[in-house]
Amino acid sequence: MARWQPDARERLQQAALELFAEQGFAATTVPAITERAGLTTRTFFRHFADKREVLFADEAELPAYAEQLVAQAPAGTSPLAIILEGLRGLAETRFEGRRDTIRQWRAIVATDAGLRERELQKRAAMAAAVRDGFRARGLDPTRAALLAETSTTLMYVSVTVWLETDDDRKLYDIIETALATLRATLDA
Amino acid sequence: MARWQPDARERLQQAALELFAEQGFAATTVPAITERAGLTTRTFFRHFADKREVLFADEAELPAYAEQLVAQAPAGTSPLAIILEGLRGLAETRFEGRRDTIRQWRAIVATDAGLRERELQKRAAMAAAVRDGFRARGLDPTRAALLAETSTTLMYVSVTVWLETDDDRKLYDIIETALATLRATLDA
Repeated sequence: MARWQPDARERLQQAALELFAEQGFAATTVPAITERAGLTTRTFFRHFADKREVLFADEAELPAYAEQLVAQAPAGTSPLAIILEGLRGLAETRFEGRRDTIRQWRAIVATDAGLRERELQKRAAMAAAVRDGFRARGLDPTRAALLAETSTTLMYVSVTVWLETDDDRKLYDIIETALATLRATLDA
Repeated sequence: MARWQPDARERLQQAALELFAEQGFAATTVPAITERAGLTTRTFFRHFADKREVLFADEAELPAYAEQLVAQAPAGTSPLAIILEGLRGLAETRFEGRRDTIRQWRAIVATDAGLRERELQKRAAMAAAVRDGFRARGLDPTRAALLAETSTTLMYVSVTVWLETDDDRKLYDIIETALATLRATLDA
């Protein structure tokens, strides 16, 4: 086995997703994942704290990134425009072209209470980061919190719609439609 | 000690809140709670599964109640009117007159990762129940999900504002203001 494994992380993630789907999250061990990937457990733990984090590690940096993006958007940009630009970037870089993988990912998370909790934490961390970004711009705390929660709502609900369909609609188009629906409902 | 303890539950809750605040959630044991309340551990476990549930048991029935309320609102009532009526009822029956207790409660939850997770689960369960209520009325699933998430956002953000102030503003007035702020921001 070569000492340098440029694709070790991706191979471990792929092996883990396959095993979680085949035999369940609880029944899958770290040695089983490394065996499937043809790598050592030592390599596994260089990349991930535990098997749960295989499913979440790629997004660990997202909240800090989102906070920075919001805080540093050009002066004068409206809060809504900042949100939409952020959601568009997220949709294009993290979701488009990966629908099958994300569908598999969500199905695994749905099977385990600990994973569902971790997913809720992820959403809460994202909302807190966006809120802090808006507060750093001087937005009123209530407005910052409402916007932050609403942006995670738009993302979460739209991803669900996107995963449930098989047509070619872009995730960002679904997000824009969801925003229009929300506006219409709140103005009723 | 009298066999019949009509206020046993409330005494246990009060004792637990006091001890959690005085010595921390992790350091507080069930026997310490029952000793403070002058009751037995047997009585404790008749009311609560564990010490964490002392903080959450009163709300266990809320999601099912909310789902029913939404599903059974008079035909023709707008979704927004249903949400606002539900939030008004919640604010008046569960929050008004209890600000100090809820402030103490939130401060305790903030100190412990397991309690924060449980709080996130509570919010998610509430949103899922409201969503299911709207689906039972025949609402489009996306609209039902957006409304449900937005109603928990309005509640959660408004409660935060209400807890941070000491004036006499009603929680429901804060909710209405938050809705107006959200509308204005989304229409910008």
